[in-house]
Formats: sequence, structure tokens, C-alpha cells
Amino acid sequence: MEREIIELFRRYLKLQGDLPLGDDAGAIMLGDEWLVATNDMLVRKTDVPDIMTPEQVGFKAVTMNVSDVAAMGARPVGFLFSLGVPRNIEMDYLEGVAEGIEKALEFYGVPVLSADTNEADDLIIDGIALGRTKRLLTRSGARPGDLVCITGDIGRSLAGLLVWRRALDVPKKIREPLYEKLLEPRARVPEGIELSELANAAIDVSDGPSKELHLLAHMSGVRIGIEAQKLPIREEVRAVAEALGLDPIEMALASGEEFELIFTIPENLLDECPVRCTVIGRVLKGVGVYITIDGKRQEMPVLGWEHLNREVKGTYREMFR
Amino acid sequence: MEREIIELFRRYLKLQGDLPLGDDAGAIMLGDEWLVATNDMLVRKTDVPDIMTPEQVGFKAVTMNVSDVAAMGARPVGFLFSLGVPRNIEMDYLEGVAEGIEKALEFYGVPVLSADTNEADDLIIDGIALGRTKRLLTRSGARPGDLVCITGDIGRSLAGLLVWRRALDVPKKIREPLYEKLLEPRARVPEGIELSELANAAIDVSDGPSKELHLLAHMSGVRIGIEAQKLPIREEVRAVAEALGLDPIEMALASGEEFELIFTIPENLLDECPVRCTVIGRVLKGVGVYITIDGKRQEMPVLGWEHLNREVKGTYREMFR
Repeated sequence: MEREIIELFRRYLKLQGDLPLGDDAGAIMLGDEWLVATNDMLVRKTDVPDIMTPEQVGFKAVTMNVSDVAAMGARPVGFLFSLGVPRNIEMDYLEGVAEGIEKALEFYGVPVLSADTNEADDLIIDGIALGRTKRLLTRSGARPGDLVCITGDIGRSLAGLLVWRRALDVPKKIREPLYEKLLEPRARVPEGIELSELANAAIDVSDGPSKELHLLAHMSGVRIGIEAQKLPIREEVRAVAEALGLDPIEMALASGEEFELIFTIPENLLDECPVRCTVIGRVLKGVGVYITIDGKRQEMPVLGWEHLNREVKGTYREMFR
Repeated sequence: MEREIIELFRRYLKLQGDLPLGDDAGAIMLGDEWLVATNDMLVRKTDVPDIMTPEQVGFKAVTMNVSDVAAMGARPVGFLFSLGVPRNIEMDYLEGVAEGIEKALEFYGVPVLSADTNEADDLIIDGIALGRTKRLLTRSGARPGDLVCITGDIGRSLAGLLVWRRALDVPKKIREPLYEKLLEPRARVPEGIELSELANAAIDVSDGPSKELHLLAHMSGVRIGIEAQKLPIREEVRAVAEALGLDPIEMALASGEEFELIFTIPENLLDECPVRCTVIGRVLKGVGVYITIDGKRQEMPVLGWEHLNREVKGTYREMFR
């Protein structure tokens, strides 16, 4: 239904900013700089696993928005939020959320500009982040010849979610790094700022690398080729995939809310790029995304919540309940 | 509880913008201009009377945010929104909301920068508006000697609500102007922009003129004197007050979501002020707000939802149900 609703609103909303809807954030020119603005609503019932502490919830509400700003190559300059609060909420819980938001604001160095409280049936945090940049990174700037890179590693968020949902008995040294990414992801803010001067395109991993790569290819009008063996997948993810009889590559490509940045960069600029990252493929002429596994090239399926829905009972979102 | 929650968050959120929390909107300096940002969440169950069409709901979600930008003396430059959508929503209703949002964006000349959809238990529209201005109007700028002025008229929104709630049998020519203000209020955007060069302080009427005047006096550290007979109260409001045995002045002062601007301006600038308005009082040294009725001066009570709660069964918000 989400897609249907988005299409409906796209059809009606003709008056858009200097960058059309469809990127990580909206943007308008103010003087000689871009002002970037994005919003993302967190609903406790559907977006928050039970094991998440209220501090982690508050922190994440900031992270998910700041990450979209980072993906535009912008420096976050302000955060706003609206709270929907059920009548029966425990004040301790809210206090934890407030602490988490403040910790995140300090972590990212972003001031809060405005806050609003309302009564609602479920706890809702609608976060808004603003940022500024001289040069905008979009989803549509990838050019044939660019290298495709990603920060950090992928798959831990989904692996952690599955460990929790299935009550998988894994050693602490495996569980901890997975839960860290699931419960305390961090946005790649300094990386986004650095990349704004060098990269051609960027997107943050919120729905899973596979979906983001498809979006990047589609919006840039290019073909993307990925080398499976280059994907930064940690041992802990491979261990969980094995325990569940899942393919670690599929799991990593379907893993959402990683908040890593996928970006494309001209090959000759890679040496001067100060961002720690892994080169995972290349931008080509054409359409779609392919992946090379053990020397065999195949079209990359769009892996994500719907995919997981087939592999694992219940949708990705339902898993949070 | 709202107050308690706001206090809680104020205590935690230390990292604020260039203007502390507590005004109509937050603000930061970008270059030589202020960027103003505000957000306000509309929850169908508590904020939307049944008679409101979905188009009116969508329009109002924009108006309430744009009004806060106008109250800062800023020109709106962008709108963002997050939707919370229940599973069982009728697509027709959503389509109406989309139409209303688009109509409002065209009316105010504001582009949409970003939109987000989520599943929620109740229909929620969290709107965000951005604006820019060289000179910021705040709630804390009123100075002794200033005149206190208001745009338009006050009381129709609450009078309309009571007509509807009580199923009052009033002639169409009374009901229509009341419902117009209740269901289709408009933000004073051109007025806010004009005032930014002349006024010392401004606030928009969202919780009722009485509450806004008290806020203005408190945040500016001044005393405000109001002349009851100067308040712009239309005949239709007086008729409804009489029919219900209520005081029309109290009703007008308690009426929320009028989206008129209350502002203070040095007396010598009034002649060059192009904004159509009514002078309703004066800023003095001291604290609090008084009102002169039939030559008798008395402290103005804080009239609003809580006040109405005593006069009329049910809280203001509960009246919407």
C-alpha cells in the first residue's frame, strides 16, 4: 500500500523544490548553497523491536534523518521533531527517549530547532533534519566508469534482527556486534561531508543495499555491476546465515537500516578520497543491476522486506512486533 | 500532560538553535539570513472535526505550519510532511488530503521538499515548514510603548465549533462565515512578510488570543493592556455567544486556530504599516495582561481549552470527536 500512497501523492504534488521528490532528501538553493531537508517518521509499533531501549529509540530517530542529510553530501545544521504520545505512556520511557535524542544531537553536533507534542494512539517520533552543502550528492549522478563503493559493512542489522526474532542461541561475541548495528546504528555524517566534494552520487542504506543499488541505477539511468566476493560481510553475519540456512550474500543485500553510504566516484579520484570504504563494483552503460557470484554474472533481484517475506515468515516490519 | 512532556524535553535538549525553543518556530542563521523551521502534527482523532472534508484537512496541515513561519516574519520556502496511515484508510480520503495539500502549496506558493509515509493507528499528518527572512519577529521583542495589533477578526473558529457541536439552529448567513474560519482558515503569509520590517514582536493565534497575549507579555518581559471594545469580534460570533449564554469577549479570547497574527509595533511606524489590522491595546512596563471592559480594568484570565472545559462540557479537543 505504501507504494500506492506514494504514487497518489506524487500525482498531486506538482509544486516541488529545486530537486524533484525521490531523493534521500529535498533541497532548495538558498544563496550559493543548497539547503537540504528530510523527514522520517518512527512508529513504535512497527519500527521498534522490543529489545530496543527508549534511549536507543530516541537516538535512532535522529540517526535515520541525519543519515539522509549525509547521503546528500550535506552537513546537518538542525533537527526538529514531533511526538505523538499515547495517554498511557510511562514518563520513564519518554525520559529515555529525550535522553537518546539529546545524546544523538550531541554526537552529530546538531541543534534542535523546534519540537511539538500531540496525543496519539501509538508512540510516534517524526524527525526532521536540515543540512547545507555547496555541492549536492543525488541518486541521479552516477556516471559510467565510476566505481561503486560502500562505507562500513552490511548485513549485521538483519542478522541481529533474525537472531532476536528466532531467539537464536549464538555466542555473545557474535550477538553483540549484530545487536550493536541493529540497535545503535550510526549515520555516516563526516563521510557524507567528505564525499560531497568527490563523489558523483550517493544513497544511504535504509531499505537494504539491493534496493538502494536498483534505485541508484534507475535514477542515474545507468547499469551497475557488483562483485559478490567484494561485499563487506562480516563473519558474524555469515555465521547467522549458515545457522538459518540462508545465503549470506542475499541476507547482506536485503539488510535495511544499516545507514551505510553507497556512493559512486570517478576512478581517478579514489586515491584522494579520505573516506574508508570498500569498492564493490562499477557503473556501466545500460539499465539494472547485476551481480557476479563465483564468476557467474546474474541480474540482482530486488531483495528486501518483500523478499524476506518469502524466506522468513512474516514481513520485515512484522518481525519487529 | 502536554506541559509535563514539554518540560521534560526542555530539560534534556540543551543543544538548541540560534533562537532558543519556545517561539513559533526555530531559527538558525545561514549566511546573512535567518532560516526558520517549524513543525506541527495533525492527528485526525483529536484535531479534526467530523464535518471537515479531507481536502480541508490537507489544506489545514499546511496552513498551521505556514502560519508559524509567517509569525516569524519569514517567507515560506518549503514544506515537508510525514503521513501516518492506518491500514483501513479509504484511498478516496487520502486522495482528498493530497488534493488539499497541493491546493495549499499553490495558495501559499510553497514547494514540497520531502514526504514520507508510514503505517500508524490513526491518520497523522506531520507538517514541517521552512522560511527565510532578513529580520526575525519573535515573541520576545515587544517593547513598552508599542501598540498591540491583530489582523482579521477573532472568535469565529470557536463559535463555529460550538454551532456544530451543539447542533445550534442558526441561519445560514451566520453559520457560513463561522464554518469558513473553522474549516478553511488561512495563514497570514503576506502580512507576516510585511511586518518583518516594521513590527517588534509577533505571534500567531493557534491556542487563542488570550493565551498568545500572555505568552507575548511573558516572553517579552512586559505588561500588555487590551481594550475590550476594540477587539475585532464579528456579529456572527456575538449572536452565537448570546444564543449559548456565553460572553462574546471571553469566547473570542479563547478561540484557537484562528491563525491571525498578533503583533506589536512602535506607534510612529503604524502609519507606514501596510497590513490591515486593528489596534487592540498597548505594551507597558510590568508583567501580565490586563483588559479594560466598560472602563473597568481587570487582569485577563488565561482563556482557552481548559477554560472552555469549565464553561462547556468536554475539553476543546474532546469537542472535535
